Amino acid sequence: MQTIVGGALPNIPWEDKPAGCTDVVWRSAKNPIIGRYAFEGSNSIFNSAVMPYDDGFIGIFRSDLKTRQQTLHLGRSKDGVNWEIEKELIDLICDDPEIATHGEGYDPRLCKIDDTYYITWCNQYHGPTIGIASTKDFKTFKQLENAFLPFNRNGVLFPRKIGGQYLMLSRPSDPGHTPFGDIFISESPDMIHWGKHRFVMGSKDGQNWESCKIGAGPIPIETSEGWLLFYHGVLNSCNGFTYSFGAALLDLEQPWKVKYRCKPYLLSPIELYETVGDVPNVTFPCAALTDTATGRIAIYYGCADSVVGLAYAQADELLDYIKRNA
Amino acid sequence: MQTIVGGALPNIPWEDKPAGCTDVVWRSAKNPIIGRYAFEGSNSIFNSAVMPYDDGFIGIFRSDLKTRQQTLHLGRSKDGVNWEIEKELIDLICDDPEIATHGEGYDPRLCKIDDTYYITWCNQYHGPTIGIASTKDFKTFKQLENAFLPFNRNGVLFPRKIGGQYLMLSRPSDPGHTPFGDIFISESPDMIHWGKHRFVMGSKDGQNWESCKIGAGPIPIETSEGWLLFYHGVLNSCNGFTYSFGAALLDLEQPWKVKYRCKPYLLSPIELYETVGDVPNVTFPCAALTDTATGRIAIYYGCADSVVGLAYAQADELLDYIKRNA
Amino acid sequence: MQTIVGGALPNIPWEDKPAGCTDVVWRSAKNPIIGRYAFEGSNSIFNSAVMPYDDGFIGIFRSDLKTRQQTLHLGRSKDGVNWEIEKELIDLICDDPEIATHGEGYDPRLCKIDDTYYITWCNQYHGPTIGIASTKDFKTFKQLENAFLPFNRNGVLFPRKIGGQYLMLSRPSDPGHTPFGDIFISESPDMIHWGKHRFVMGSKDGQNWESCKIGAGPIPIETSEGWLLFYHGVLNSCNGFTYSFGAALLDLEQPWKVKYRCKPYLLSPIELYETVGDVPNVTFPCAALTDTATGRIAIYYGCADSVVGLAYAQADELLDYIKRNA
Amino acid sequence: MQTIVGGALPNIPWEDKPAGCTDVVWRSAKNPIIGRYAFEGSNSIFNSAVMPYDDGFIGIFRSDLKTRQQTLHLGRSKDGVNWEIEKELIDLICDDPEIATHGEGYDPRLCKIDDTYYITWCNQYHGPTIGIASTKDFKTFKQLENAFLPFNRNGVLFPRKIGGQYLMLSRPSDPGHTPFGDIFISESPDMIHWGKHRFVMGSKDGQNWESCKIGAGPIPIETSEGWLLFYHGVLNSCNGFTYSFGAALLDLEQPWKVKYRCKPYLLSPIELYETVGDVPNVTFPCAALTDTATGRIAIYYGCADSVVGLAYAQADELLDYIKRNA
Amino acid sequence: MQTIVGGALPNIPWEDKPAGCTDVVWRSAKNPIIGRYAFEGSNSIFNSAVMPYDDGFIGIFRSDLKTRQQTLHLGRSKDGVNWEIEKELIDLICDDPEIATHGEGYDPRLCKIDDTYYITWCNQYHGPTIGIASTKDFKTFKQLENAFLPFNRNGVLFPRKIGGQYLMLSRPSDPGHTPFGDIFISESPDMIHWGKHRFVMGSKDGQNWESCKIGAGPIPIETSEGWLLFYHGVLNSCNGFTYSFGAALLDLEQPWKVKYRCKPYLLSPIELYETVGDVPNVTFPCAALTDTATGRIAIYYGCADSVVGLAYAQADELLDYIKRNA
Amino acid sequence: MQTIVGGALPNIPWEDKPAGCTDVVWRSAKNPIIGRYAFEGSNSIFNSAVMPYDDGFIGIFRSDLKTRQQTLHLGRSKDGVNWEIEKELIDLICDDPEIATHGEGYDPRLCKIDDTYYITWCNQYHGPTIGIASTKDFKTFKQLENAFLPFNRNGVLFPRKIGGQYLMLSRPSDPGHTPFGDIFISESPDMIHWGKHRFVMGSKDGQNWESCKIGAGPIPIETSEGWLLFYHGVLNSCNGFTYSFGAALLDLEQPWKVKYRCKPYLLSPIELYETVGDVPNVTFPCAALTDTATGRIAIYYGCADSVVGLAYAQADELLDYIKRNA
Repeated sequence: MQTIVGGALPNIPWEDKPAGCTDVVWRSAKNPIIGRYAFEGSNSIFNSAVMPYDDGFIGIFRSDLKTRQQTLHLGRSKDGVNWEIEKELIDLICDDPEIATHGEGYDPRLCKIDDTYYITWCNQYHGPTIGIASTKDFKTFKQLENAFLPFNRNGVLFPRKIGGQYLMLSRPSDPGHTPFGDIFISESPDMIHWGKHRFVMGSKDGQNWESCKIGAGPIPIETSEGWLLFYHGVLNSCNGFTYSFGAALLDLEQPWKVKYRCKPYLLSPIELYETVGDVPNVTFPCAALTDTATGRIAIYYGCADSVVGLAYAQADELLDYIKRNA
Repeated sequence: MQTIVGGALPNIPWEDKPAGCTDVVWRSAKNPIIGRYAFEGSNSIFNSAVMPYDDGFIGIFRSDLKTRQQTLHLGRSKDGVNWEIEKELIDLICDDPEIATHGEGYDPRLCKIDDTYYITWCNQYHGPTIGIASTKDFKTFKQLENAFLPFNRNGVLFPRKIGGQYLMLSRPSDPGHTPFGDIFISESPDMIHWGKHRFVMGSKDGQNWESCKIGAGPIPIETSEGWLLFYHGVLNSCNGFTYSFGAALLDLEQPWKVKYRCKPYLLSPIELYETVGDVPNVTFPCAALTDTATGRIAIYYGCADSVVGLAYAQADELLDYIKRNA
Repeated sequence: MQTIVGGALPNIPWEDKPAGCTDVVWRSAKNPIIGRYAFEGSNSIFNSAVMPYDDGFIGIFRSDLKTRQQTLHLGRSKDGVNWEIEKELIDLICDDPEIATHGEGYDPRLCKIDDTYYITWCNQYHGPTIGIASTKDFKTFKQLENAFLPFNRNGVLFPRKIGGQYLMLSRPSDPGHTPFGDIFISESPDMIHWGKHRFVMGSKDGQNWESCKIGAGPIPIETSEGWLLFYHGVLNSCNGFTYSFGAALLDLEQPWKVKYRCKPYLLSPIELYETVGDVPNVTFPCAALTDTATGRIAIYYGCADSVVGLAYAQADELLDYIKRNA
Repeated sequence: MQTIVGGALPNIPWEDKPAGCTDVVWRSAKNPIIGRYAFEGSNSIFNSAVMPYDDGFIGIFRSDLKTRQQTLHLGRSKDGVNWEIEKELIDLICDDPEIATHGEGYDPRLCKIDDTYYITWCNQYHGPTIGIASTKDFKTFKQLENAFLPFNRNGVLFPRKIGGQYLMLSRPSDPGHTPFGDIFISESPDMIHWGKHRFVMGSKDGQNWESCKIGAGPIPIETSEGWLLFYHGVLNSCNGFTYSFGAALLDLEQPWKVKYRCKPYLLSPIELYETVGDVPNVTFPCAALTDTATGRIAIYYGCADSVVGLAYAQADELLDYIKRNA
Repeated sequence: MQTIVGGALPNIPWEDKPAGCTDVVWRSAKNPIIGRYAFEGSNSIFNSAVMPYDDGFIGIFRSDLKTRQQTLHLGRSKDGVNWEIEKELIDLICDDPEIATHGEGYDPRLCKIDDTYYITWCNQYHGPTIGIASTKDFKTFKQLENAFLPFNRNGVLFPRKIGGQYLMLSRPSDPGHTPFGDIFISESPDMIHWGKHRFVMGSKDGQNWESCKIGAGPIPIETSEGWLLFYHGVLNSCNGFTYSFGAALLDLEQPWKVKYRCKPYLLSPIELYETVGDVPNVTFPCAALTDTATGRIAIYYGCADSVVGLAYAQADELLDYIKRNA
Repeated sequence: MQTIVGGALPNIPWEDKPAGCTDVVWRSAKNPIIGRYAFEGSNSIFNSAVMPYDDGFIGIFRSDLKTRQQTLHLGRSKDGVNWEIEKELIDLICDDPEIATHGEGYDPRLCKIDDTYYITWCNQYHGPTIGIASTKDFKTFKQLENAFLPFNRNGVLFPRKIGGQYLMLSRPSDPGHTPFGDIFISESPDMIHWGKHRFVMGSKDGQNWESCKIGAGPIPIETSEGWLLFYHGVLNSCNGFTYSFGAALLDLEQPWKVKYRCKPYLLSPIELYETVGDVPNVTFPCAALTDTATGRIAIYYGCADSVVGLAYAQADELLDYIKRNA
């Protein structure tokens, strides 16, 4: 049987699949669960990262302010659906003022390794690159070294060391809107120096939903079938980019090896809150919650670079679907 | 009096023009008549071709699957409005495996010449070009030679030979999203070799709805005033392409001669199902039905590269409008 | 106290700020106040200029016809909300046929200086440039010389001479969709010859709503704090341009000096009529009315290059907000 | 033994390989054999086609006039090295004025099939395409139909029918400088209608001299090893295109099958007349002479879009080299 | 008879046309007359303006320093061929520090109107525009207002007022390398304010030496046939821009009317100093001397953006050639 | 006094500065010292690295083969001027076949740290990145991990550890010809994992020789004034890139701090072997030799991507020049 590896999360947000729905990933009826104006001065909230914490949930949220600066904010929720997001930027302490970004940045991910929480996000240091910060209590945040030279986006850590090394997925980019993009993996002994860079998987030739570029989404989920990686793929139509998301299964011990890569997308912009907004036609997953006991998966995804949506999957059905459609 | 040449089609889909509407082409109140999910695995249905057949209607439908592959499917309808579309790709038999495309392709047109039905569509053979297939019974389909070298799109046959030759309109393109495009006509003695290529009409300089590129739509409709050609025109705004459609009348015997070209568009993306979708702001006609007895015309058009819409016109009024606005 | 300089306008359109709204600019509940089809043959009405006149209001309206030609039309209103727009293009008399544009053009502004009304708009003379016309009665319109060499857009006059000279803001452009753009000021002794060109303000580096280009909006409004300039700013996302608008305060006597420039935008495309249309994600202000007695400001802005919206602000609150957020 | 199929040409231009030269193609010491100013008003002569004729040689020459119009001119030579080129454009008679190009065009090839000489060249008919003309006496020239729809360049006929059909190589292009390009083959029963289009070979991925685009050069030369095709390949450096040329051997009966494709180029721009001129770094072969008796091959190639060069090869050595380096 | 209007210049540089030369413009045998290193720190001298002055000649020279800054320098010569160029930048006095450019700039022209010498050049003020300075003694230089808003290049004054107005040709541009460009004329009552902008002539469609853009060269020369305007034209090859120059005759009283425009170029990059250098393939005229008595014309032109060349023409022959080839 | 830190190299190649030369860097009279055809099959030799070794010199040479593959070759010389270059690619042993590049690559640098020689070069691993190999005897070469994720070029090591860490300069790039580029520094404890990435210096705004991009050249040279870094800078003209080179002095202990950056270039393409070739207008330094005793510096630089040139400087004069011109 196909199972998620990890702890139980009885309070995981959940809605059963609607009758008649034949998809393996379905939307929350409450979408968008977070609107544009979660705090005063906010233009939009999207592409954000959440985790279980204490008896509820915690998250790092991307906002575009009304200046259209891109900022990171802490948020808390009892149920994972209703969120309180702080107006203040997260307060990152950084030893070296040259790289300090003071809470600006975008597209955060949140990963717990042992007893430390790591935030990775898209930092601006002479171009986009991967910022890293750590916290143990979500009160004090320390900004570490940027993982890579510019230009990079979508840096996503694995939730445990493999072979004694930290591992990070990332997507080498260019300074602009980047009309290409493949996923690589890099390893680090100390979360400062990164090396042994390997190609994991790339955009696909021909007509498909991921023909332009791809990028890792939530923290990979350990399962009996391999690391379950949700990732976004981009199609470049004559009217711009369309961001859908799909999934792949990576080898547990050698995660640079792709075991299965699901050919159809799992979710693509259809609803008005996904197709209309600051960037039309975007569904961009950045976080997922899982409950081992039930196999439930809750996926948080940015919608049209404007609001946050929630979608659900059942692990057993999903893994089966990925393998059958690889 | 201005009349359509051809047979009667008493069961043509029809809805009267809404009260107060001053346009000569009006939308069905049932739009979109075909939604995204006509069969399992479908992401969208649009830009498709239909014909009367037996006592109902038959069609070749473009789908984008959830892989975003572009595929061709057979569909049937009693009334031209409610359609059953097969999940399987149309099964094309092709003598030469090098050019066989096995039912992949997009933007089909369907043309009856004598007792044979020809499908033309945008094929992928080292770039986009015009594929041709023939059938007599919609059970066995034979893929013929591609009409042209790459790069070409929007190949549209005339419904009868002229001067003993088959005639095809097409729109030379490039491998990408093609920021230019004019309509040419070519002739063939055998549906295999094509020559005597002539320019028909091009995009228009200056500010207008067809300033970027144009392409033939449905099979030309024979009328007392010339071949009635619906065609799409593209305007390139700072936020991408807008596909509207208009009409022209071509000389009956020398269809490379444009007799009248209607300056205003006939229909442009306004409704939400036309302005929002996989490619926003697209109305793209690929087929039309006519009833000689009543002068009714029913136009099938793709909406936002996502769904199928239906629009109506009355021949007499339409031809008059084209001539007055040329 | 911060006040508008000018006359009273008791019949200024007005709706109080909705309860709970924390913004300083809010939309009319009647939006869009002018739809696409104000007259037969119109595809859209947007980016237009209005003024008090007689006991009501008058305006010069941009339409895109169903040919998608860009044309200028006269309109009249009793209340500033309900408008009668003439189907005919405004009839410009021009001495030199070489520059005559016969009512074609786009994005008009309307400015009263002494007893003459000046229309400025984007003219096409071997590329976009600033056309000027004058009228005293809105019956006879005289087209003057174009202000500048191509390529220019968004020419906006000041409502009185300063230092004995006419002053005009403008935005040097290129022949296409112009991926850059800063606001300059020029002066003229005679409304024919222009010189002493000075930079006023430009697009801003980094992540913000005006990082691509900016352009002046309505005629500057004289206030106790300086000239209040509403202007649009453009952000270039991977799916195209987003037009928001903000405000700045320019020095009264040396208006090339920016006293305050408000960092957040004031209004950005959120509503469906702003985000969906011929050009998605556009809010583009071209005119404003003010009432000195109450400090009310009514801003007319084009929405999605399709319809006209109306928004309101209270001078005192607005000026305070600009200064606090500069 | 590897041999050329064809007649003897004892007066073929020839110079032995210089001592110490290890290349299989070597330049004439008289290069450039034709300078820029072969007739009054000429800016340059290059990319031209020659043939044995009577007891000497005849050719169709591309000139750019000092207007930089591109024109075709007849030339005659006793020895193939010293040429008289007529100032007048070749006088093409064309039945249909719409396609008549009156001697304008570029990059001609000259092919004898049975007793008729065919000229193919790059024509301008709403974009570049392949023009065809025929003559039997080089006095009367008849312009036939263009072979293909735009956009196409480098149309090269085979010197005999195969399977009862004329065959032509061509390189589908775009309207501009075309950053891509593969060689296709098409067949025709009548030199008017063309079909059965097949891919022959394309540009190569990765770092090589033909990574951007390729195009057929001289008329293919029949040999015991297959059709010997000289073709140009283009590398796109940061300072523009570099045109080298290489060779391939095509199957005699199914010339869409590539038997051998030589990996290194045969000749690349090195000499000052090849690296400096109207288009730097171009060596572009358009014609070759062969002598069966000796295996000598003389290749005419355009240099820097300015002058004509001559190079030599020995068939046996060349074919062997191609096969060893394929 | 066709004659130059103006004074005698017996010491005009001159070399007779070489025997056998059939061109109407021929190069000096001493070319390049000014090399790269006219003073220490100079990387190149080119695109410069000269005039008779006292009993010799004076000029404003463009240098690129070894920093590749673009700077303007004064030079003096007894014979117009051997020049002393000052290392110091010309010292421009400017009332308004905002527009002061302190001797930086490029592509100067030098024009005497009445007793004042005007320098126009390409200034950098938020983009390229036309700077103007005046001097009476070449000791004190006063920088005036920039003529136009950005973006503009190639501003060239007429040597006398017409209709009481100063006249200037210019070429609206964009901030970069500008792939388009037409010549306009503007008038000014005061050398500060410019208006009445009219199109003069543009780049030409199709294959020719001036298909990409054009720009005025030396100060127009008054002749019995009209204003003789040398101008550069640019062709955009796949390896970049080629700058040739040609000539036109403008109406004496209405110089926006082109009487004759010579179809062939007069001079195009052929010599090594024109084809190889910092910008290959550039011949760019900025100044001309004339002698009424003999009809001699000496043209100074920049070569490959590196050195200065000199070319000659005989007025009678040249005017005749222009008229015959228009 | 300003001195080089390091050993004596009495046999350093040397030619005294020519009389009259005022430059601080001067060319060898023997240039190009290595031509295109150093071994059979070579198209060009350039952008190469050399070092003292045994009693002579050793080097890693970039060749483009006649296939235009980019390959690395070992070369030996007694005098540093006359070189024997091996036809075979250097034989790199690599543990992981996925990253093995078997001697392909380009633009090598050669650095001795302690008793190990490191080669860094531009590798191709899903895009350009920095390859590293080590050898102790130039017989056995071991390919290590690539330093960075794609896309990167111009990786240059420091010749000793600083703060216990290896240091590398590099220039983040894109997959193509990269129209931007700044120099960063990264550190590594183990030559495998790299981190602590810091910006060193970037291209310069405005008109200068390094306005488009820059990249480190030879291994930094330790001097009393700081690390002497020769680097190339690129200017983007309308006819492509021009590669000049200049110098900067970096802080000895914190080499991410630039002490002096010389404003003028030191050497720019002027000679025919620098301005004409496979890539015109390139001078690209990759190696330098120094002799502490005399202060002599010999700089090896690629010319026009075709051949190798040699230039000289005197340390004292050079350092003084850099400081005076910073």
